[in-house]
Amino acid sequence: MADGTGGNQQIALGVDLGGTNLRSAAVTKSGEIVFETHRPTFASEGVDSVIDRIALAIREAADAAGVGKDVPVGVAAPGPLDPRRGIVHFAPNLPGWRDVQLRDRLQSLTGRPVILGNDANAAALGEFIFGAGQGSQNMIYVGLGTGIGGGVIAEGRLIDGIRGMGGELGHVTVDLDGPRCTCGSPGCIEAFCSAWSITHEAELLVASGRGDAIHAGAVNGTIGPRAVGAAAANGDPAALALLDRAGRALGAGLANFINIFNPEIIVLGGGVSEIGEPLLAPVRRAIDTYAMAVMTSDVRLIPSSLGLKTGIYGSAALVFYDDHP
Amino acid sequence: MADGTGGNQQIALGVDLGGTNLRSAAVTKSGEIVFETHRPTFASEGVDSVIDRIALAIREAADAAGVGKDVPVGVAAPGPLDPRRGIVHFAPNLPGWRDVQLRDRLQSLTGRPVILGNDANAAALGEFIFGAGQGSQNMIYVGLGTGIGGGVIAEGRLIDGIRGMGGELGHVTVDLDGPRCTCGSPGCIEAFCSAWSITHEAELLVASGRGDAIHAGAVNGTIGPRAVGAAAANGDPAALALLDRAGRALGAGLANFINIFNPEIIVLGGGVSEIGEPLLAPVRRAIDTYAMAVMTSDVRLIPSSLGLKTGIYGSAALVFYDDHP
Repeated sequence: MADGTGGNQQIALGVDLGGTNLRSAAVTKSGEIVFETHRPTFASEGVDSVIDRIALAIREAADAAGVGKDVPVGVAAPGPLDPRRGIVHFAPNLPGWRDVQLRDRLQSLTGRPVILGNDANAAALGEFIFGAGQGSQNMIYVGLGTGIGGGVIAEGRLIDGIRGMGGELGHVTVDLDGPRCTCGSPGCIEAFCSAWSITHEAELLVASGRGDAIHAGAVNGTIGPRAVGAAAANGDPAALALLDRAGRALGAGLANFINIFNPEIIVLGGGVSEIGEPLLAPVRRAIDTYAMAVMTSDVRLIPSSLGLKTGIYGSAALVFYDDHP
Repeated sequence: MADGTGGNQQIALGVDLGGTNLRSAAVTKSGEIVFETHRPTFASEGVDSVIDRIALAIREAADAAGVGKDVPVGVAAPGPLDPRRGIVHFAPNLPGWRDVQLRDRLQSLTGRPVILGNDANAAALGEFIFGAGQGSQNMIYVGLGTGIGGGVIAEGRLIDGIRGMGGELGHVTVDLDGPRCTCGSPGCIEAFCSAWSITHEAELLVASGRGDAIHAGAVNGTIGPRAVGAAAANGDPAALALLDRAGRALGAGLANFINIFNPEIIVLGGGVSEIGEPLLAPVRRAIDTYAMAVMTSDVRLIPSSLGLKTGIYGSAALVFYDDHP
């Protein structure tokens, strides 16, 4: 349908499957979370055990919310996955997952319609339907987590390509000879501005003796984006330079999305985005450098409004967005 | 409509407005060109004179094809332009063109519905409806001309954003510190693999004394992509290295489009693409390096099938594709 939202559903169930936690919820069309729970994924116990646990989480949410058997469940899972056929091809944080027919197995275990989606694309739909992207029709979502995921809404529709694997915004190259990414390619924005890449750079600084301020900002001894952000906020030159490099690459990537999509809104989410100004200032400078001015003036860069609820809202959004039934 | 093509139109008029030539035609829905003409644009005579000449070209095509007053005309023009409002904001090769309301002026001069489109987006629609992209639903078109233009079809729809200015595929950055592009940004694929950038690099080689083979391949003394391609085909190391650099950057850009769009087809058009293997070999290597394997296997890289008729078919395609009436 034209606006990409809607359907007759007034309430949906949602499951956010992560490598560590498994969340389930019941969410109304207007965005009220009527029930929510989470449990460990226990991914090491293997595929069958995890799938049983997902089915249990779905039943729990359905019972608590008192919804009927006809209410569908959206399942947001790590990719790469094929949402059209319902198959998780591979998931780095879920040992043993190789071409798992997750959708059909959950449908037979729960008796409900199941809609499977990539977690990053689901997050984009969540922001579009329930969050910062509400009311827009052309939106880019970029989630700066351990890795970088994303999703594109163009004219109200999720852009995910012939097999639904598109929207891999974290793996856009902005530096032909840049640092190697986990995907194997050089110069992806994930290799500059994800939690893993910022942590890697911070550890190098600490090891080289130039990371004292970052080390001082470490929470429970953990060097990571938060420690870098804290050091940068205190004016530490090494931390500022690290975030300048990370933000410049991210901003060039966002500029690419602006030149390709002429969007209204870019929503930045994920833990790394909470660093705020020390990261966002170089991001904005890079957008001004790399994007075409005629389109930069159309777009607003805004933070996610769903925060820690992104996964839950995203999974429910898979149901309310019925473009790919 | 679902497939993005169609409408009731059985025949359309089309105008391809270039800085040098002005082409007009009548094209049937099945792709037969029933009449075609071209004349110089005489851009130096100014906006009003060019618009009168466009109206004349439209009348000429309509009269020759014997079509009624209700038959619309698609006008493909250089950008940036606003297809929704019908305004050409600026056109580097058309002196004096600044925020020209081309659509409405042509509508009143000809009494016909006029659909204005960016020439690169129109070319993408032309390949989609009449050319190499027929039958696909997820297609990227990249035209390697003097500059680099492009267009994206996702699930049968042209992706052009909130004001219709998207699809600027030539201005995607793949090298944060790369060569400066005409758009002002560093590292755009246009700054590596367009006719102007290849010519610039070739001229530097000739000036440095390493361009003898390229010079020998020059047609009428003109150093350009064709001369470079001829030298490379003869095994000249300097020409091969030049095209290796150009093709690598283009391939990384195409890899970005693959990771974003999970397309079925990438259509390469424009004069530079006629260099063939010496350029395409590094393009394919870069796609393998920079794109995610799971999506590379879905896509075919194919040449434009419209060639010199791209402009005419593209302008007519603006009419047959009625997604943005």
